[in-house]
Amino acid sequence: MEIWFSEFHTPDVKHSIRINRHLYSERSDYQQIDIFDTPEFGRMLTLDGNVVLTERDEFIYDEMITHIPMAVHPNVCDVLVIGAGDGGVVRELARYDCIRRIDLVEMDPKVLEACRAYLPENASRLDDSRVHIFFDNALRFIRRKKDEYDLIIVDSTDPFGPSEGYFTREFYGICYNALHEDGVMVNQQGSPFFKHDAEVLQRSHQRIAKLFPISRVYQAHIPTYAAGYWLFGFSSKKYHPIDDLDIERWKSLNLETKYYTPKLHIGAFYLPAFLEKLLMEVEE
Amino acid sequence: MEIWFSEFHTPDVKHSIRINRHLYSERSDYQQIDIFDTPEFGRMLTLDGNVVLTERDEFIYDEMITHIPMAVHPNVCDVLVIGAGDGGVVRELARYDCIRRIDLVEMDPKVLEACRAYLPENASRLDDSRVHIFFDNALRFIRRKKDEYDLIIVDSTDPFGPSEGYFTREFYGICYNALHEDGVMVNQQGSPFFKHDAEVLQRSHQRIAKLFPISRVYQAHIPTYAAGYWLFGFSSKKYHPIDDLDIERWKSLNLETKYYTPKLHIGAFYLPAFLEKLLMEVEE
Repeated sequence: MEIWFSEFHTPDVKHSIRINRHLYSERSDYQQIDIFDTPEFGRMLTLDGNVVLTERDEFIYDEMITHIPMAVHPNVCDVLVIGAGDGGVVRELARYDCIRRIDLVEMDPKVLEACRAYLPENASRLDDSRVHIFFDNALRFIRRKKDEYDLIIVDSTDPFGPSEGYFTREFYGICYNALHEDGVMVNQQGSPFFKHDAEVLQRSHQRIAKLFPISRVYQAHIPTYAAGYWLFGFSSKKYHPIDDLDIERWKSLNLETKYYTPKLHIGAFYLPAFLEKLLMEVEE
Repeated sequence: MEIWFSEFHTPDVKHSIRINRHLYSERSDYQQIDIFDTPEFGRMLTLDGNVVLTERDEFIYDEMITHIPMAVHPNVCDVLVIGAGDGGVVRELARYDCIRRIDLVEMDPKVLEACRAYLPENASRLDDSRVHIFFDNALRFIRRKKDEYDLIIVDSTDPFGPSEGYFTREFYGICYNALHEDGVMVNQQGSPFFKHDAEVLQRSHQRIAKLFPISRVYQAHIPTYAAGYWLFGFSSKKYHPIDDLDIERWKSLNLETKYYTPKLHIGAFYLPAFLEKLLMEVEE
């Protein structure tokens, strides 16, 4: 018997992964949650049929969304993480002793529950004493916060369905207000290759670039995402993602990583010509 | 009716592209050649069922295998291109006025014929007066050449079947001998993500690193290749791919590119930690 999971990256492109076993399947109040065991990628979490992470390649996403801002901002104490109920971002953040508080806002308790049970490596630091978990709508949660965080990480799913509100001008505005005067926001920015994805990227980048004095996009190779090519936004009130990168400080922490290096940090901001053009079109 | 082309990137991962029409299909003396029309990627060339190029993303491969060495070597006059019967590499090379000779060695005349007929954009410069086409076995062809080329580009298919001989110690040795004392060889080096591909990369990198004083690997995002993550080898007798990059000289040529930029050139050599480790393991 053969079982395959397929995801349409566009109506005309399909990525399929062989399945050993369907370990978990539940319809929460917000979305369809599934966890599979696969021979190539280990365990895999999908939400509404889209790959969110696999054990085999989550290190790329989780390291790149965490260590890039942590290697730039010189003094991160208070962090807000939005989405990310699997715990991968929290796991990376928890490696930094300087951090004294990690607020995790996840709307769907069932995601956390499933990941604790089936993705223990990702969820391993969710019980760290600095971590405070809020099952809430992130917009409502952040609207109450002013000048409170050094770093906000928006680890949302794609801007369709439950995460749609995390890609609006209003949302970026309340994130801006919740940050200290030298705060940094990092968010997942989708993939630039397929036409529809590129339009979503442009819209979101335009909104952020209007708000933050510094807004740059950086890239990583993530095999299970569309076109294998994924982007993140680095938005900042003060620090520049390359000029303020402190390689010596980061190296002195002796954090072992599988994808991130301070050199790769720099290269991640050196984008292909077609992508520079897409971004410039909406930067004015 | 739905028609899909599928390629197995591993036995457990499958990439599928919707087909409008099967335009060309022929069994040559060497391989099965097919050209499809697809809604997402335009026309697509496959050899023995593996994607070689699509109109939509060939610019990434062809620019990265060509402009990286051309922006480093200060004086490229004589170039040898191996494989590349589609003409994409020749098209990029032909934009440089400094080049006075491009020898193209392709074993399979049918590939050239098919690409001239169905991929005219790729094949557009094959009739440039500087281009000399040899339908020959590349090993036999190069063995006769000593100290003759400034640049050799090995644009082969993967190291199985007809291209297997282009990944051997012997092959790299005769390329070395065919290069001038400051010559550069660039080759496609596969993908590092899946286990089997990573082993092939290590084997090939080890062989090259033993021969050339400088041997570095660089990366690009290529959506239709395994894991969307592709590598090239830069092997050199004298010039360093970053220290000898002459940004001003390259910019003064005013070549418009869709992927390559001199900044991205640098970033392409800043590799993820796991890949640095894979390469170091075989560098001694």
